[in-house]
Amino acid sequence: MKKNIAIFFITAVSAVSGVRAQRSDSLFIRRIYDEALLNGHAYKRLEELCKGYGSRLSGSDHAERAVTWAGNMLRSYGFDTVMLQPCMVPRWQRGKTELLSVSSPLLNKRLKQFNDTAGWACEALEERYKKQAASYLLPACALGGSVGTNGSVSGSLCVVQNQAELETLGKAGRLKGCIVLFNEPFDEKKISTFSAYGGCVYQRVNGASLAARYGARAVLVRSMSNSCDLHPHTGVMHYVDSLPQIPAMAVATSVANTLAAVADDPKLVITISMDCQTLPDRLSHNVIAEERGATFPNRYIAFGGHFDSWDQGEGAHDDGAGCMHAFEALRLLKALGYTPRHTLRCVFWMNEENGARGAHTYAEQAAKNGEFHVAAIESDRGGFTPRGFSIDAEDAGIAQIKTWTSLLAPYGIHQFEKGGAGVDVAPLKHGPNSMNKSMLQMGLIPDSQRYFDYHHAETDVFESVNRRELHLGAATLAAMIYLLDQTLE
Amino acid sequence: MKKNIAIFFITAVSAVSGVRAQRSDSLFIRRIYDEALLNGHAYKRLEELCKGYGSRLSGSDHAERAVTWAGNMLRSYGFDTVMLQPCMVPRWQRGKTELLSVSSPLLNKRLKQFNDTAGWACEALEERYKKQAASYLLPACALGGSVGTNGSVSGSLCVVQNQAELETLGKAGRLKGCIVLFNEPFDEKKISTFSAYGGCVYQRVNGASLAARYGARAVLVRSMSNSCDLHPHTGVMHYVDSLPQIPAMAVATSVANTLAAVADDPKLVITISMDCQTLPDRLSHNVIAEERGATFPNRYIAFGGHFDSWDQGEGAHDDGAGCMHAFEALRLLKALGYTPRHTLRCVFWMNEENGARGAHTYAEQAAKNGEFHVAAIESDRGGFTPRGFSIDAEDAGIAQIKTWTSLLAPYGIHQFEKGGAGVDVAPLKHGPNSMNKSMLQMGLIPDSQRYFDYHHAETDVFESVNRRELHLGAATLAAMIYLLDQTLE
Repeated sequence: MKKNIAIFFITAVSAVSGVRAQRSDSLFIRRIYDEALLNGHAYKRLEELCKGYGSRLSGSDHAERAVTWAGNMLRSYGFDTVMLQPCMVPRWQRGKTELLSVSSPLLNKRLKQFNDTAGWACEALEERYKKQAASYLLPACALGGSVGTNGSVSGSLCVVQNQAELETLGKAGRLKGCIVLFNEPFDEKKISTFSAYGGCVYQRVNGASLAARYGARAVLVRSMSNSCDLHPHTGVMHYVDSLPQIPAMAVATSVANTLAAVADDPKLVITISMDCQTLPDRLSHNVIAEERGATFPNRYIAFGGHFDSWDQGEGAHDDGAGCMHAFEALRLLKALGYTPRHTLRCVFWMNEENGARGAHTYAEQAAKNGEFHVAAIESDRGGFTPRGFSIDAEDAGIAQIKTWTSLLAPYGIHQFEKGGAGVDVAPLKHGPNSMNKSMLQMGLIPDSQRYFDYHHAETDVFESVNRRELHLGAATLAAMIYLLDQTLE
Repeated sequence: MKKNIAIFFITAVSAVSGVRAQRSDSLFIRRIYDEALLNGHAYKRLEELCKGYGSRLSGSDHAERAVTWAGNMLRSYGFDTVMLQPCMVPRWQRGKTELLSVSSPLLNKRLKQFNDTAGWACEALEERYKKQAASYLLPACALGGSVGTNGSVSGSLCVVQNQAELETLGKAGRLKGCIVLFNEPFDEKKISTFSAYGGCVYQRVNGASLAARYGARAVLVRSMSNSCDLHPHTGVMHYVDSLPQIPAMAVATSVANTLAAVADDPKLVITISMDCQTLPDRLSHNVIAEERGATFPNRYIAFGGHFDSWDQGEGAHDDGAGCMHAFEALRLLKALGYTPRHTLRCVFWMNEENGARGAHTYAEQAAKNGEFHVAAIESDRGGFTPRGFSIDAEDAGIAQIKTWTSLLAPYGIHQFEKGGAGVDVAPLKHGPNSMNKSMLQMGLIPDSQRYFDYHHAETDVFESVNRRELHLGAATLAAMIYLLDQTLE
């Protein structure tokens, strides 16, 4: 395998020409950043997308209107080819009703206590509760893919802090008829918030079936976030076929903390009500723009983000930013008069959030059309200051990429880590239709500290994106595409 | 000089003990970050400071009340010593009146045109103008140190884009009786926004005297910011003694763009009115907390930020964050049971913004008391994700610090650059009272992309600070203090 990777790199470079190449690379990369920072288009286009079309849940009318906009927007730049690639997508719909109410005589008292001792600022929560007087309607929303409640579901509350506790309580019959709150918080010690997310997201994805196995009536899931705030964060969940399908809601982190603090109230009753549903699949599209390669027109370097989003917020960081990174990277190279050696493809994949149907369709079609991909880069970690790349390659390939450190360090790019690239590019390499199991795949890594403040929540709006941070990300992606295009065979 | 630096480092370390030291350093640094991320106090204390006391302009009642809070807050942690160090500070006061009005028949038309062609989103500006109907009151504020207008000052507008243009127009007599707009924007190509600031800030600091020399009546200065928005950014300005003192205002970047677009209107008249003034100096204080060193109690490592702020916003990033970095670094080391070799001093310097009187007093007192400082670290670049350090040392010292790269890279700390440390620590090394011209000085470098969105503006409030970013900064400072304390003699 190592050899397969290695042959994609031009290795027979003399020391002298190597130095010369680094010098001209360095100058061209400087031009990329200059153009992005002085004349970047990504921020303005992201604003049009977020403010003109809002969220883009797969199968929604919003999403399809935004696809049309994206095609027209890309065509306006005169790229060699712009196309919409059809794919069928699932269609889950949030209902009009989403209620989580709590009746607990202790709540008022405990709220006071909770706010006095909490390390973070949660006073806003108390204020909001007060406004609701006796009824205690708490901020919560359906998880994507959940069934509705068909009326309402009530039960006592059972809080589990981790999977071991779930098993213990479940086996003791203590979850039967309960509404289970999955309350394992992010491990704040992780420097990358994505690592913390990875350790907790089982609660959201599998929580309903894990609890249904022990007779629970519904589940509440602590939002996947580092913040203590009032925003429920939605996201995909799946049911295991053999188990009852029970409703699943996300609750804001501060609500999870509060519920945990009153869980010992014997009179506490939780009631949830929601009318979300799954409709038949619907036609949607990947959006593709490409610039034809001069040397290897039939070898592709693909890069992009996903165009769908959850229906909270505007899908600005997740993943409008990744799409605009990719569009802008292609624009930057074109604006600088760069003639690519390989065919460069900017792809806005559809349906990453709840099915990755666009990614699978793309890989299928690539195989069918004989589009040999030598590399693919995904951007799906937000529009924050870029820090580096996650690299899905053998050690030899990673070592080669690390020789570019000095070219990218002036722009604050220092992290080159072995790791996954992303679910939208993965099928090209690891899926059943892969034409190139040894292709190079990378994921752009922006700074992750703020990402989960916005992820899948109403806070993920255009205003949460910083212009310079977004444009630096696009330039970094363009610089990496350029280096790969120059280096790979 | 090189030798002077080198002797502060323990150089006679065998390879074996070096490895062992790195391993134990690595474990202790991990504990520092864990404590900061799990139990950090900086964010909560910053909230108390910002929301309880607001801005802290030198000589204001606000600032003195906040000093009292800071002393009590630090005492509550049981540090060996907490003290308030008296210093006299200047006292400039913003008045109740701050008006910039523009009369221009072309403005409406040009605004429309301007918004159509601007690369950034400035629609909000047009809306605000409309609300003001015919009078066109634009967002502007006095620069710190400016004289008032003693009634109002009117004149035609003269826009200068750079210093050369100022000289040309001035020598041609074209600035006489005018109100001059200094309109040189940040160089967006600079990756560090501080470099862009450095290239433009002469307009704010020296603009009034530069223009007064050619007979201008007043100056408007484009805000020192990367954003195109409606917030004027204040900041310090100085007059040259031999020239007339004319009023100076900051205007929001979008206002500067707009004014430049209507500058050719022959009927355009600018009127400004403000009643700011300078009062007699007033007693204020540096706030100091220290933990006594076990090996070298009379050798000091000082670290801190400045406690004063401008009177717009809450001084959250500038520089509440730096003060909380320093407090938290001392707390972290104490909470982990660390016994320092040198005496560690956390300092909240007063009056950095318009005089640095606190910094000079601190250096004076240190010399008087024979407090020999081996190192000092300043944090005055905001509470964003930390990226590295600026190092004021000889090359040998910088090379030694770079050997710690592998210890700090896991936390995203990659930048170790030769450069200035900051104006609050500088007098200790470079001032007339320096006891140690070869001491090591460093400045914490956080990510700079968002800094000038908030700097000296009403947007610099607690909500603009991210908890994890702030706590990572504090941990990074603590890790560096630990490494210096372990390494220096």
